Amino acid sequence: MRLVTYSRSGTPALGVVVDDRVLDVAAAAAQAGIVVPAAMQDLIEAGAEALDRLAALVASAAAACWQPLAETALLAPIPRPKKNVFCVGRNYKAHIEEGARARGVPLVFPTVPEFFSKPSTAVVGPDADIRLDTRLTDQLDYEVELALVIGKTCRDIPVAEAMSAVFGYTVLNDVTARDLQKRHHQWFKGKGLDTYCPVGPWIVTADAFGDPSGRRVTLRVNGETRQDSSTSDLLFDVATIVSVLSQGLTLEPGDIVATGTPAGVALGMTPQRWLVDGDIVEAEVGGVGILRNQVRAVA
Amino acid sequence: MRLVTYSRSGTPALGVVVDDRVLDVAAAAAQAGIVVPAAMQDLIEAGAEALDRLAALVASAAAACWQPLAETALLAPIPRPKKNVFCVGRNYKAHIEEGARARGVPLVFPTVPEFFSKPSTAVVGPDADIRLDTRLTDQLDYEVELALVIGKTCRDIPVAEAMSAVFGYTVLNDVTARDLQKRHHQWFKGKGLDTYCPVGPWIVTADAFGDPSGRRVTLRVNGETRQDSSTSDLLFDVATIVSVLSQGLTLEPGDIVATGTPAGVALGMTPQRWLVDGDIVEAEVGGVGILRNQVRAVA
Repeated sequence: MRLVTYSRSGTPALGVVVDDRVLDVAAAAAQAGIVVPAAMQDLIEAGAEALDRLAALVASAAAACWQPLAETALLAPIPRPKKNVFCVGRNYKAHIEEGARARGVPLVFPTVPEFFSKPSTAVVGPDADIRLDTRLTDQLDYEVELALVIGKTCRDIPVAEAMSAVFGYTVLNDVTARDLQKRHHQWFKGKGLDTYCPVGPWIVTADAFGDPSGRRVTLRVNGETRQDSSTSDLLFDVATIVSVLSQGLTLEPGDIVATGTPAGVALGMTPQRWLVDGDIVEAEVGGVGILRNQVRAVA
Repeated sequence: MRLVTYSRSGTPALGVVVDDRVLDVAAAAAQAGIVVPAAMQDLIEAGAEALDRLAALVASAAAACWQPLAETALLAPIPRPKKNVFCVGRNYKAHIEEGARARGVPLVFPTVPEFFSKPSTAVVGPDADIRLDTRLTDQLDYEVELALVIGKTCRDIPVAEAMSAVFGYTVLNDVTARDLQKRHHQWFKGKGLDTYCPVGPWIVTADAFGDPSGRRVTLRVNGETRQDSSTSDLLFDVATIVSVLSQGLTLEPGDIVATGTPAGVALGMTPQRWLVDGDIVEAEVGGVGILRNQVRAVA
């Protein structure tokens, strides 16, 4: 299933996308007289049985419970995550090379995933603006990433079992102010500003998505392709990331984990072509879809 | 006021500590027939007027609403923060020097605060065990810190106004697995394991705490003083930290911000004396109190 959170009369509502239509889950459940969680976080916490009930609901829902996707205002799938978004840095070989070259530092590949976080206040959804505050940065950059959503509470989960902890997949743009990232040494600040974490357009459940390897990962700025790679080039794959992250650290339903970005960021270009006011950024992962946001300068 | 969260029949409850007694806020409010938030997060979000109502309640509450502090099981003041805990690295001169010496890297002082985060799952309260998982680390370290709690939603708050955003102060132990911190490059993983963020024993409201400078910051392991400094030695003071952190990044009521640790950590000792099973760690900040936790090895 493709699960969305959308704005219904200004309130976040759970929906399911089928082709070009969105099911109003709460309305369909009420009409069918069954109980299904009406918010994405609740659905994820409710587990596999609730997901099965939802799938049955989708198959049987009346036409009146559907609306055109094109007329639906999508929000981030989890509009306000219950903790910061987990992220992995430097996880594609060519991106590590471009980063080392741009910064003039020796090329060293990580031996374990490098984790950091983006605050939940940074999360925005499809079509939301990315704030460009020129008082704070003049090096705004993009990073398309495959992100996964955790489906069950786990700690110390072995690599061989880690995929069972994944609820689904989405697209995440790890927006970064390179000057802040460098100045503050730790990556948190330069990657943590409001709107610096677009997520969406939906979560594709793990069963529908299938194997996360071999997925094309691309990003376009105003239609021009800047990043174009495949998750097959990940240094650390999804199972490894989940397993290592969970060592001594409890993961919970609804946790979002971004898996890193491939080469092609503005930092690595000569000359460097930072995002500017009005830029349209389209982040895409094969099997999920396109996450589109516009850069908007603020006074 | 000294505000606590404690376990009442297994459920978190808001209390106020006066001398050696704790007020059951919900019971006192019910008896007085007034409405006061019964959870710390709700109280902080409710603002100054709710705090005034609570102060009046404390002054008038019947004896039956009080219980001995010694018989009260304290939890972390905010048992489950709504996002990760904000932290500042390298913010005391002597600690920066010991860190550079221990790692054999050049001594360079930061020009801006270095921020990172600890996941909300790492938060534990007074007297909770700190997990030592020897499969993951054999370099477990402590870091006593003054932490502040944000009281209002703000972004881009100037230094001159930043203190108005502070609700109160507490003690935080930034427990760190030095080997993981080093191996994962970014500090998140080595500082983010479960139980690695003891907080407490209470929040002292900003009006009661007063000026955060000149506060003694100490840490003892099994009664032996390891850290002993003053917040006057902070490179970046509380107002500066809040202001810089809020640049482009919305802070919210209940956000916790740790301000960094002084010299004396195990990493900086010769020989390095890591925490071991059974160690009693007491982190203390003058004007707040003592946060005591025990290290417990897990299989």
